[in-house]
Amino acid sequence: MIVIDSLVDFFQETRKHTEKLCEPLEIEDYVVQPIVDVSPPKWHLGHTTWFFEEFILKPYAKNYTIFSEDFSFVFNSYYETVGKRVIRSDRGNLSRPSVEQVYEYRNYVTRAVQSFFEENQNETLLALLEIGIHHEQQHQELLLTDIKYILGNNPLLPAYSDTVETHQNEIQEQQWVPIKDGVYEIGHNSNDFCYDNELGRHKVYLQPYQISNKLVTNEEYIEFISAGGYTKFDLWHAEGWDWVNQNGISAPLYWHKIDNQWHHYTLKGLQQITMNTPVTHISYYEAFAFAQWKGCRLPTEFEWETAQKHFPWGQRWEWTESAYLPYPNYKKADGALGEYNGKFMVNQKVLRGGSVATPERHTRPTYRNFFQTNLRWQFTGLRLAQ
Amino acid sequence: MIVIDSLVDFFQETRKHTEKLCEPLEIEDYVVQPIVDVSPPKWHLGHTTWFFEEFILKPYAKNYTIFSEDFSFVFNSYYETVGKRVIRSDRGNLSRPSVEQVYEYRNYVTRAVQSFFEENQNETLLALLEIGIHHEQQHQELLLTDIKYILGNNPLLPAYSDTVETHQNEIQEQQWVPIKDGVYEIGHNSNDFCYDNELGRHKVYLQPYQISNKLVTNEEYIEFISAGGYTKFDLWHAEGWDWVNQNGISAPLYWHKIDNQWHHYTLKGLQQITMNTPVTHISYYEAFAFAQWKGCRLPTEFEWETAQKHFPWGQRWEWTESAYLPYPNYKKADGALGEYNGKFMVNQKVLRGGSVATPERHTRPTYRNFFQTNLRWQFTGLRLAQ
Amino acid sequence: MIVIDSLVDFFQETRKHTEKLCEPLEIEDYVVQPIVDVSPPKWHLGHTTWFFEEFILKPYAKNYTIFSEDFSFVFNSYYETVGKRVIRSDRGNLSRPSVEQVYEYRNYVTRAVQSFFEENQNETLLALLEIGIHHEQQHQELLLTDIKYILGNNPLLPAYSDTVETHQNEIQEQQWVPIKDGVYEIGHNSNDFCYDNELGRHKVYLQPYQISNKLVTNEEYIEFISAGGYTKFDLWHAEGWDWVNQNGISAPLYWHKIDNQWHHYTLKGLQQITMNTPVTHISYYEAFAFAQWKGCRLPTEFEWETAQKHFPWGQRWEWTESAYLPYPNYKKADGALGEYNGKFMVNQKVLRGGSVATPERHTRPTYRNFFQTNLRWQFTGLRLAQ
Amino acid sequence: MIVIDSLVDFFQETRKHTEKLCEPLEIEDYVVQPIVDVSPPKWHLGHTTWFFEEFILKPYAKNYTIFSEDFSFVFNSYYETVGKRVIRSDRGNLSRPSVEQVYEYRNYVTRAVQSFFEENQNETLLALLEIGIHHEQQHQELLLTDIKYILGNNPLLPAYSDTVETHQNEIQEQQWVPIKDGVYEIGHNSNDFCYDNELGRHKVYLQPYQISNKLVTNEEYIEFISAGGYTKFDLWHAEGWDWVNQNGISAPLYWHKIDNQWHHYTLKGLQQITMNTPVTHISYYEAFAFAQWKGCRLPTEFEWETAQKHFPWGQRWEWTESAYLPYPNYKKADGALGEYNGKFMVNQKVLRGGSVATPERHTRPTYRNFFQTNLRWQFTGLRLAQ
Repeated sequence: MIVIDSLVDFFQETRKHTEKLCEPLEIEDYVVQPIVDVSPPKWHLGHTTWFFEEFILKPYAKNYTIFSEDFSFVFNSYYETVGKRVIRSDRGNLSRPSVEQVYEYRNYVTRAVQSFFEENQNETLLALLEIGIHHEQQHQELLLTDIKYILGNNPLLPAYSDTVETHQNEIQEQQWVPIKDGVYEIGHNSNDFCYDNELGRHKVYLQPYQISNKLVTNEEYIEFISAGGYTKFDLWHAEGWDWVNQNGISAPLYWHKIDNQWHHYTLKGLQQITMNTPVTHISYYEAFAFAQWKGCRLPTEFEWETAQKHFPWGQRWEWTESAYLPYPNYKKADGALGEYNGKFMVNQKVLRGGSVATPERHTRPTYRNFFQTNLRWQFTGLRLAQ
Repeated sequence: MIVIDSLVDFFQETRKHTEKLCEPLEIEDYVVQPIVDVSPPKWHLGHTTWFFEEFILKPYAKNYTIFSEDFSFVFNSYYETVGKRVIRSDRGNLSRPSVEQVYEYRNYVTRAVQSFFEENQNETLLALLEIGIHHEQQHQELLLTDIKYILGNNPLLPAYSDTVETHQNEIQEQQWVPIKDGVYEIGHNSNDFCYDNELGRHKVYLQPYQISNKLVTNEEYIEFISAGGYTKFDLWHAEGWDWVNQNGISAPLYWHKIDNQWHHYTLKGLQQITMNTPVTHISYYEAFAFAQWKGCRLPTEFEWETAQKHFPWGQRWEWTESAYLPYPNYKKADGALGEYNGKFMVNQKVLRGGSVATPERHTRPTYRNFFQTNLRWQFTGLRLAQ
Repeated sequence: MIVIDSLVDFFQETRKHTEKLCEPLEIEDYVVQPIVDVSPPKWHLGHTTWFFEEFILKPYAKNYTIFSEDFSFVFNSYYETVGKRVIRSDRGNLSRPSVEQVYEYRNYVTRAVQSFFEENQNETLLALLEIGIHHEQQHQELLLTDIKYILGNNPLLPAYSDTVETHQNEIQEQQWVPIKDGVYEIGHNSNDFCYDNELGRHKVYLQPYQISNKLVTNEEYIEFISAGGYTKFDLWHAEGWDWVNQNGISAPLYWHKIDNQWHHYTLKGLQQITMNTPVTHISYYEAFAFAQWKGCRLPTEFEWETAQKHFPWGQRWEWTESAYLPYPNYKKADGALGEYNGKFMVNQKVLRGGSVATPERHTRPTYRNFFQTNLRWQFTGLRLAQ
Repeated sequence: MIVIDSLVDFFQETRKHTEKLCEPLEIEDYVVQPIVDVSPPKWHLGHTTWFFEEFILKPYAKNYTIFSEDFSFVFNSYYETVGKRVIRSDRGNLSRPSVEQVYEYRNYVTRAVQSFFEENQNETLLALLEIGIHHEQQHQELLLTDIKYILGNNPLLPAYSDTVETHQNEIQEQQWVPIKDGVYEIGHNSNDFCYDNELGRHKVYLQPYQISNKLVTNEEYIEFISAGGYTKFDLWHAEGWDWVNQNGISAPLYWHKIDNQWHHYTLKGLQQITMNTPVTHISYYEAFAFAQWKGCRLPTEFEWETAQKHFPWGQRWEWTESAYLPYPNYKKADGALGEYNGKFMVNQKVLRGGSVATPERHTRPTYRNFFQTNLRWQFTGLRLAQ
């Protein structure tokens, strides 16, 4: 199914796109890690490269000389199988290897992968290449949100670029899309690439429900704030309420009230909030509390997947009510690649859709993203159901 | 449906049973709180009493004089609606009110409730009485597990009583109970009492599965330990693995290896482990890792409920793979009683069954218990599915 | 020098006095430990007993049968030399041994010591007895301040007794006592008992100074509060300022402003502040900031000791500017008793004087008490110098 | 007393020397802050510049245009008087302003100061210039030790430069320098520059003592390690012993045992330990424990100052037994400069001497450095007394 030439092209495009995302950065921006969830851009560049070296070149490419023993140590992420990793919270302390050396590493590995696939082609290898490409695409998304965090928490609030994060308005009229009860099929169902957590297509029974054709907008969210949403404990989960109070939360991430007007930091710099764009940078706790306040609820991921063809999506990652759990018959891959998804399947929530930071060709209706309930640095939004 | 006389009798029995559970205690045992999840026995006695005073006597009993304003403050638990509560982790710092005063408070409120219901009987009131009884039963379970924690973490390892925690062996032969795929109904379906989280009977689609007729035994769990289960990261969730390492976990709670023999603290004191009783005092992380090691999995709560008539249960609370989420059309009660269940429906796992600490008449096939994934002080065990 | 009969009498009196201090307590009060610096009264009773058993009876009394192996473990404090101790912050989790058992332990050891000294008398033994008595007296002081903390942080604010903590007013007129510069002698200089940290009488050179004949009063301290003393960073040490802000400090410990009037919890219960009694329950940071605000300073311990005959003292422990350091030629005792003083000689401040909680015959002009700079649960006050 | 030309020359030299110290750095090295005590090199460059702008140019230079409002905010350190500072632990999260901008800022301010002093000369201004120069010299010392920490904790262990940290051996024979008892004078006593904490020349009485002519060497320290020094609690202060155990300390900072040989990271890279150079990078706790083990003690700062002419010094900062306290009649400066020294005079120890990182002309016999007792990233060593 995988067409070799186009896949190697896809590989080259993906590698270039990652580097293009870093073009507006100063060298200093590549280095810092303001919170544990954010990784330094330099690390993303190295880690996506290490993935190809570790899983393709080292095991399969004869005569391949690894670029540097030290880099394996520094750019491993959470793969317990593969040597001692650098503790995640220490990534921002590493001034070396330098940005220049990391780019050398990238070029070295990109060329080696290209050469290797000119002479070696089999299904196993191509499947590894494909997963490596999709892995790098995921990191492109993180790269953009991590850059936003690094710049958006700097007191100078520097802009990243003028050509990104164009907010599309929600212009259609709000309507409830009704779905009948019955047995539906869920999960990936084609020969195209998908992650292992989407596999195991299976039946679910859905009760009758309605789902909104629109994402919740900034205007609606400001109404929630004005109505005291952040001060009414009965709208919140107990641990959400603790989170609000311990962290002094009173608005989405990146929002600032200046002269009584709501502004937010965007990749283009500080801007006034536009009313009819979708709200973003909210935690699951906030999405849930908003839905409670509206007398509605969040859809489950099954409801979302079943209804998704009835509404546009892809502007925001959408929080669902579903816990991130394995599908029936889920089986994780052998070895280190088995650490990709399964080991995170506890105490996280599924997000569906895709965002302005998601690379083209990367998301699909069955795609399952997942984060802890308190996290907000992704472009997260919500859609109501009832 | 509720028969008034029997309900008031049930009330009296329940009140007495709570006090009976405390009979073997020294006064000192009533006071301490070794970890935040454990409450002092004194607090359970007061809090279950406060519940009847706060939700029945104060709003409905004319001329009722509350026992003490201070007690409302001290014995409120998590009810944000009702005044400022004592921070949970501070309960163990309160030497006053004394145990004697708390018993006076109990007697005062028990008599007042009895008198009140001799003259007042309507459905609303009886429903409140019933929920108050079941609330106290839940605290009986916690009382016993909290007492076990208090004594079992004392370096003197004092016994609580000789007449409790009789371990029933799993004597039947292990068999897989096969269940066909199809649509099944889940949720409470009678006029008997249940909690709001069991309501909303609804259909689910289950894939074909098999579930064990037996709980996993100590013998099997010791094999897991011996096979290095606690040292193999690939059996664990990522956060489970962190939990194991940060807390130095290498066996269930209360287990001690003495002269190369596994012992455990029981309410009867320190004893040698018996091989064919069900393993207990394990976290969800451990239950999951054991199932991974066996090449099996935990059942979902829907699989458990559908299959439960095919096996005996009630010795252990059984971890399921299901996250604790609202059933379709779940609606929480108005006011403070609405804080009972709904606000905990995030980042917890459902347990099904019942344990040696569960009072008679308290559990049922649709009963949903729930705890955070790291907790072990309840009598928690597991059953395999595949 | 030590007269045997009077010393054994002193022993008996001291043992009785400790128990007398506990008479007003409920059993529950013996058990709790609200903060790490406070020990449960039960523990003080046991620990002072353990001291006599460990250092006199076990090594010297032939045929002595120890009361219980477990108690050595439970009632050891910080003596690293003598077996594994119970981590200090866990003392409040121990409901057993019961209060009754601890009193049995006390009686058993008191009788054994009495019997032993009826037949054994030599200087080594009497010196050990004497240090044991003084050790118990120190714990009497802690016992009273710990009881105050336990009751004073209970939301019911129960009184301890009507016969203690009688506040003596500072009725004399404030005057500056002038001391000339020159060489003075410091340190213990008689055959009476003292601790090792007072020994090594030595010369110091003092610059000319003046020291107040009065302790600072509540009235003066309220002026400091009213003048914004807690909000002016330039009065504070950098770490004192952090302490104020991180803990939200705005008045001495136990102070409550009720209907615009300052009250404080005393061992007699909640009372209105009296203006001309000495301020108490302040940290070194607060003492320092107050002195800065007055344009004065705290005396050094040498200035205090040199001038002490010129003013009454003994109502409060007085913070000095001196760090707790060894005197020249300080030599700590061999073995476990060597852990008594020397190992605390870093990052603490010396207090001089004595307080309402100090037992009679326990303090003297050369006595050196010491605490960390943030602690306030002792009866700490201040005297100005310039 | 201050000769204007030479002082402006000294200013220019000092500014250049700071930049010279940064020459070997990659841009990435300027940004990171691995621990709270270490500041990013970029921050030192900016902060020393801000000092001249804030205290000279802004108040005194008419028509001076400040470089950037934001920089005041970012490069303020602990000066509470002057606006809101960036929380110290966040410095390593700031990728902007860029290194290039910081150098522009330096040049802008250096030129402005030079121009200003060409036309304005009075004692107040020159005194401010002088303190600004010495402030920058202090930061040169920190810069070098912070760079060492940044590179020495990077898994690649990169070298900084081949021309620094030349270890001078302690070649003279160890001898005890005897000093008689009597009254000595302490404190600064000339018209040359000194800090306010050295002023207030005053008399002290010293007991007779002996002080070593040599610093303790690596060889002696290795003997201490080999003799189990890190495992014997009775050599340590109680809080030192906790520090050893909580942090797993078993050797000085930067020491690595490789193939059974002690190595240490130096600014020239990883090297084998040389035996007769002074030990360095030890905490006060370690210095104290070593002295205990030797049956000696650390000198007080007064003993050190009195004896210093009898031995060479300047290779290491030497821990003393003296707490950092104000001299008699110490008076802090008015305004923000008053925050320089006085507010740190609690819970720190005095160090005397100077180190390989100390700029020429910066230290003197009366110079008092000070650090918390657990810190090791400075070039700290010890000298014995008895």
